[in-house]
Amino acid sequence: MKLQNKAIDANGDDRLRQIFFAAAQLFCEQGYEATTMSDIGDAIGVTKAAIYHFVPGGKQDLLFAIINYGMDTVDEFVIAPARGIEDAEQRLRAIILNHSKLVMRRSTDQGFNPVTVMVDEVASLSPAQRRKIDLRKRAYMDLVRETLQQLKNEGKFKDQLDVTVVAFSLIGTIIWLGHWYRPNGKLSNGQVAEIICRMALGGILR
Amino acid sequence: MKLQNKAIDANGDDRLRQIFFAAAQLFCEQGYEATTMSDIGDAIGVTKAAIYHFVPGGKQDLLFAIINYGMDTVDEFVIAPARGIEDAEQRLRAIILNHSKLVMRRSTDQGFNPVTVMVDEVASLSPAQRRKIDLRKRAYMDLVRETLQQLKNEGKFKDQLDVTVVAFSLIGTIIWLGHWYRPNGKLSNGQVAEIICRMALGGILR
Repeated sequence: MKLQNKAIDANGDDRLRQIFFAAAQLFCEQGYEATTMSDIGDAIGVTKAAIYHFVPGGKQDLLFAIINYGMDTVDEFVIAPARGIEDAEQRLRAIILNHSKLVMRRSTDQGFNPVTVMVDEVASLSPAQRRKIDLRKRAYMDLVRETLQQLKNEGKFKDQLDVTVVAFSLIGTIIWLGHWYRPNGKLSNGQVAEIICRMALGGILR
Repeated sequence: MKLQNKAIDANGDDRLRQIFFAAAQLFCEQGYEATTMSDIGDAIGVTKAAIYHFVPGGKQDLLFAIINYGMDTVDEFVIAPARGIEDAEQRLRAIILNHSKLVMRRSTDQGFNPVTVMVDEVASLSPAQRRKIDLRKRAYMDLVRETLQQLKNEGKFKDQLDVTVVAFSLIGTIIWLGHWYRPNGKLSNGQVAEIICRMALGGILR
């Protein structure tokens, strides 16, 4: 279910990503339980059998694969670039800007970024799948908290704040973008990301 | 389904609220579709028939009633007190503190505040029910936006921010509390609400 290996199977990867986006959009619009594999096939013009060719394990495994794909994109576009930045303030800026843009990035005008599903739909995963996703989320939260702790140690953190509360508040603001941002509004996703970053840094740093 | 009229049927209201909390908790843990009316009855030790006595319309109507109840509590504990505050900065403080505490308020130690369900589960409502909830949410967002706009008009708003982006960012942070705050942590809900308020006002106001 890894999408990194583009050279080996570019067409298969594209089709898989198409299935992920169509399924994530349907799960979002009508709920996970109410969506059938046939609905997903209809949405992209293929048979249910073709969906099972790519996702043999059925709907729960598809959901798990989508959430992992969402976490893969967080790894690639947010965590990996951030790890290369030594300065904590610049690292925090990069995390906020890159994660915000990732949530606002869409497959189509009405498209839906599966990153948003990742959070809401863990209730439908198996316990073992849920533990794996929780571990991936915790690794990301640890990066955010370590960055904030470094700023605190450097004396840049405002008084009377708390690293954990600030970390989850930032993530809440960013995840929430998927619930309200529409790509045809007056602000581009880059402008919205900049405003969120300015407000967050203004609230956190001396 | 109104809960205001306590004098008329106090016991019925308590039982109804008990059903709302039990159902909201189950919807959250195992998903709306996967939860049956019997599950909800089992959770509070009554028969399925007893649940139908209070909610004759079945599970979708129960979900709609829970979301409306969540919005009733926002009306009572956030919107109504805020409308009585003339000063925009004090009004914003009251909105952030009261809404944050409302999301963190629980029926039991492991309890779950139905306010959080309100946002995630609208996909399972009928289109007419969804429109009604959307209108109630919009009225609340209008209050938040008007408050921010008043601060902007008074010259208290930081440069290069946007009223709508700030409004949704605040709400995202507050709603997200329901996903991570645990009542037995090192900070009380009052302390967490104060930190969120301090960070938000620091990011928004000059």
